[in-house]
Amino acid sequence: MAACAELNSECIEEFLSSFNTVLVDCDGVLWCGEDNIIEGSRDTLVKLRMLGKRVIYFSNNSTKSRSQYQQKLHRLGFEAELNEIICATSVCCQYIKDTLNIDENVYLVGSSGFIEELDRHGIKHFGSGEDPVEGNLTEWTNIEYRTDVKAVLVGFDAHFNYMKIMKAANYLRNPNCYFLTNGLDFEFPLFNNDRIVPAAGCFVLPIQAAAKRKPTILGKPNKLMFEAVKQIYPDVDATKCIIIGDRLDVDIEFGKRGGGDEGVVSKRRRLRGAVSEWERAVSKSWRP
Amino acid sequence: MAACAELNSECIEEFLSSFNTVLVDCDGVLWCGEDNIIEGSRDTLVKLRMLGKRVIYFSNNSTKSRSQYQQKLHRLGFEAELNEIICATSVCCQYIKDTLNIDENVYLVGSSGFIEELDRHGIKHFGSGEDPVEGNLTEWTNIEYRTDVKAVLVGFDAHFNYMKIMKAANYLRNPNCYFLTNGLDFEFPLFNNDRIVPAAGCFVLPIQAAAKRKPTILGKPNKLMFEAVKQIYPDVDATKCIIIGDRLDVDIEFGKRGGGDEGVVSKRRRLRGAVSEWERAVSKSWRP
Repeated sequence: MAACAELNSECIEEFLSSFNTVLVDCDGVLWCGEDNIIEGSRDTLVKLRMLGKRVIYFSNNSTKSRSQYQQKLHRLGFEAELNEIICATSVCCQYIKDTLNIDENVYLVGSSGFIEELDRHGIKHFGSGEDPVEGNLTEWTNIEYRTDVKAVLVGFDAHFNYMKIMKAANYLRNPNCYFLTNGLDFEFPLFNNDRIVPAAGCFVLPIQAAAKRKPTILGKPNKLMFEAVKQIYPDVDATKCIIIGDRLDVDIEFGKRGGGDEGVVSKRRRLRGAVSEWERAVSKSWRP
Repeated sequence: MAACAELNSECIEEFLSSFNTVLVDCDGVLWCGEDNIIEGSRDTLVKLRMLGKRVIYFSNNSTKSRSQYQQKLHRLGFEAELNEIICATSVCCQYIKDTLNIDENVYLVGSSGFIEELDRHGIKHFGSGEDPVEGNLTEWTNIEYRTDVKAVLVGFDAHFNYMKIMKAANYLRNPNCYFLTNGLDFEFPLFNNDRIVPAAGCFVLPIQAAAKRKPTILGKPNKLMFEAVKQIYPDVDATKCIIIGDRLDVDIEFGKRGGGDEGVVSKRRRLRGAVSEWERAVSKSWRP
């Protein structure tokens, strides 16, 4: 990765002309939590569009389907066509359907985002919702497991519990059962708040330990996400894209694997300031 | 570690005279699951006692207190005084009380074994039992956390769920709050059964990831366990002890840290055969 450089009036024109497409992460970059918009993020995207840049929303969040993302973007005042949204739930389900060709069931540790996309792709699934723990060790060794499970898919699931760790691990005893996840984020980005709200990566770890297998990560930094962009915009050129993200391990790594520029990545805690800087830099060069 | 050697008639006398105390792990060594006794284990201990060896039961299992262990040993036909039982729940609580001097609360991810020992040691605690998940991300960022929590203690808890990961991680934001666990077993040893029943180590991992902190492991291989033996039997000599266990990383490592012999450790899957061999070897040399 090139060293970070501040955008100033001397290099901003050159920088802006170096890309035509912006892949922008959402959680932690445009907003934090339910509806804490990060200052400047909306205006920045408006200005980028006015400069003729293509804006693509790009998220690993497993709680939302593409249409749920569009609703949230609209609710928070962001312009967004469905085609401008690439999200891990949709990309994962497309991969399960088209590449893995799964006709059998998927055991889902996940919530409405994955449920909606699995349904939309016609993939059979079960496991979502509550699964209360019952019994003792002897009874747990006698749980009936289905034999038609071809993948365990792990995303965010507020009902995550002991039963789900056990069931996922036991389905994964079958070496032909795929172990898939959208990503390994361990907490949600929050706004001016040092509380910890654990994310889906925390559910992958115990399943991985019990099953003694590692999952395939289908969201960023897997380049499947970039291939999904190419399917919608065949003319997109990775060398002409920048990525605005908040995680070095996920967003920058994705930038490298996609073959594009490493982009603008800000540490979340400093993001509010960083986006304001970024907006100021764009504003300076932007002459309507 | 010395290479493994089969005990034969030539070396058995020498081997038996090399120790006077046997530290024997329970789950996966004497029994698997609720009441599947491993063949030969009961007779072996009887014979060792008849040879004048001191037998100490020695477990990292976090589901049972010392007295619950004694009840189980008696139910399965093992001779056992309370003083012959060293278990992680009791050792952890003794450490919390005497060494950490905790007067504040312990947030417990655990069940009856820890509850009974915490109560017996007069340590205030909360968190056990069901903790149903409610609310959404915004509400989770506003959960009220107690300010009188000085330790998070993680053992086996069938009610483990998302709320417990979140609460444990948030109490651990306080750098003065201790993060403690009995051990990192990821599954219970089962008998003739390839099912996976996840154990307490699976609960430590997501809490560790969300809190970005590693726990202190107070059970084996921590030498606290051996110090607990010394408190009861001040004359015990580590170089005259052997350990019978089923985990190289826990039992052998413990043997090294305690300063004693590396002992007899068998891979669980081959344990039934191994214990029979061990019993046969002891029988050969045993002349009543």
